[in-house]
Amino acid sequence: MIAPGAGPSGEDALIARYFKPLATDPGAFGLLDDAAILKPSRDDLVLKTDAIVEGVHFLPDDPPDTVARKALRRNLSDLAAKGAMPAGFLLTLALRSVDEAWLTPFARGLGEDAGQYGCPLFGGETVSTPGPIMVSISAFGHVPSGRMVRRSGAGPGDRVVVSGTIGDAALGLDIIRGGAAASVLADDASAREMLVGRYRVPQPRNLLAKAVLDHASAAMDVSDGLAGDLAKLCAASAVSAAIDVASIPLSASAALVLAHRALGIEALVSGGDDYEILCTIPEGRFDAFAEAAGLAGVAVSSIGTVISGASGPKFLDAHGRDLRLAHRSYSHF
Amino acid sequence: MIAPGAGPSGEDALIARYFKPLATDPGAFGLLDDAAILKPSRDDLVLKTDAIVEGVHFLPDDPPDTVARKALRRNLSDLAAKGAMPAGFLLTLALRSVDEAWLTPFARGLGEDAGQYGCPLFGGETVSTPGPIMVSISAFGHVPSGRMVRRSGAGPGDRVVVSGTIGDAALGLDIIRGGAAASVLADDASAREMLVGRYRVPQPRNLLAKAVLDHASAAMDVSDGLAGDLAKLCAASAVSAAIDVASIPLSASAALVLAHRALGIEALVSGGDDYEILCTIPEGRFDAFAEAAGLAGVAVSSIGTVISGASGPKFLDAHGRDLRLAHRSYSHF
Repeated sequence: MIAPGAGPSGEDALIARYFKPLATDPGAFGLLDDAAILKPSRDDLVLKTDAIVEGVHFLPDDPPDTVARKALRRNLSDLAAKGAMPAGFLLTLALRSVDEAWLTPFARGLGEDAGQYGCPLFGGETVSTPGPIMVSISAFGHVPSGRMVRRSGAGPGDRVVVSGTIGDAALGLDIIRGGAAASVLADDASAREMLVGRYRVPQPRNLLAKAVLDHASAAMDVSDGLAGDLAKLCAASAVSAAIDVASIPLSASAALVLAHRALGIEALVSGGDDYEILCTIPEGRFDAFAEAAGLAGVAVSSIGTVISGASGPKFLDAHGRDLRLAHRSYSHF
Repeated sequence: MIAPGAGPSGEDALIARYFKPLATDPGAFGLLDDAAILKPSRDDLVLKTDAIVEGVHFLPDDPPDTVARKALRRNLSDLAAKGAMPAGFLLTLALRSVDEAWLTPFARGLGEDAGQYGCPLFGGETVSTPGPIMVSISAFGHVPSGRMVRRSGAGPGDRVVVSGTIGDAALGLDIIRGGAAASVLADDASAREMLVGRYRVPQPRNLLAKAVLDHASAAMDVSDGLAGDLAKLCAASAVSAAIDVASIPLSASAALVLAHRALGIEALVSGGDDYEILCTIPEGRFDAFAEAAGLAGVAVSSIGTVISGASGPKFLDAHGRDLRLAHRSYSHF
């Protein structure tokens, strides 16, 4: 961690100028020391790390403030799915050069999100790289001790629930790339903008974290595609699931693209970057969960049921036929 | 964080295969969940993040196990300088491809160090990059609440102390690059090997952490060069320092290179990668500190005195003349 100091180092000046204002917790020491501290708590501390790479997780032309928001929000989404409240984060930023026109909006977007989500910066490091920009964040959250919501608690009979809508970010990326969705929505700039926004700036469901903590038997965030992430949750819980594809929540724009057969449902449930919460809720808890979600202002949809079995989850169409998805999720390797 | 799951993802298999064995703490859940937990403690949790980039902080030809060790040990060195005991770490690894011949020794080296230093892996993520390999680590340590050793506590009259020897890593890098030190030591393979080893595999002074915690008024690790790092400590403490250059501890090999005038003392005190501890010790505490260091098996040297003043620290030669160092530390930008 490079902190502002007396030395002539450009890194120090960079951190001081751009990132010190984000270090609002007293334990960050204004980024003036080599390390920060989190004070003791009776809670467990949830630890998560996640990175995004230019050209892989974001596009070189993406606005810098959206790159910052995406980097932090991906981590916030994980904390939410684990039932945790954000506590703070550490930042590592690999840059080819110190570009003020990029760093200024990057730091502004990051600072706004840190404030909005109550997740201040505890330490930052910049490193130079000859390669793509990389933003690596480690985030911390609090949960009551022993109560982090795991992937592994789902039981047969539990409802499978997702927040928000699925597939919008995949369509947003398709639109940026001038794909089929762009053609369908050629006359609807606001729909295109909404979908691109869903790709560039996730809306992590931190408002749902308490309801997940109180009611979910298992949870994770949907970041690599609903189908693949559900398969992971089922495997961790040693169960399967039957999903009613017609119940998967779609935005009006996504439904329109599907209706035009420009893309199939498979593209939506295997596309990444949704940052919705996927969770399983015991039947007797569902009403209370739905009420808590409503009070939190987060839409949730019941999309199927946990069943016993070791095979992957089934995605059933209106006729009860399994779609047998070929590609369940995105993998970088 | 990509964890092993049922999906077909190559990332999942990679994490499971190489890094799950390093996740020995129960709070890491065997890397099978999206996040890990640290149990509550009465201590403050010290937070630190640090990254190394291929071609910048390590060389493409460096043995992979040394790359792993350097990435972790840089963080361990910071924890030691803050008086903290290691608790664990998070890893983000950016790779161009899954290269078994690189990953196997990388994971082995990382695992050996995690075991040796009592600093287990709590979570790992791999991301693909078209650019250089990057290893980003966030490390956590425990200190008694309120007692993290800051940069800012040095007071006039305190002794300035460093552990180990200074400048060996800078000479090691010079040797790898075929510089002047390589010529001086052309006939001494073991000296060259020692110096290159000091560059590639830092020896963080975690055994000294308790003595630093108990006795130091200020501390930081020497990673960007003794002169620049001391200037930072002095600035944070609003003091200056007078350093007796002849007291700066050098290895026999470094002394030989200096004697041949192949490189000057400036190269040694402004070179990076020492990973020694720089601290200030109140005069009345020095004997107890030195005794504790001796019991820990770590050599420490008193190299000067904290003085009042706002100018940068003075490096005084045998005639009391200030060397007026032009370059105090290494900066990436």
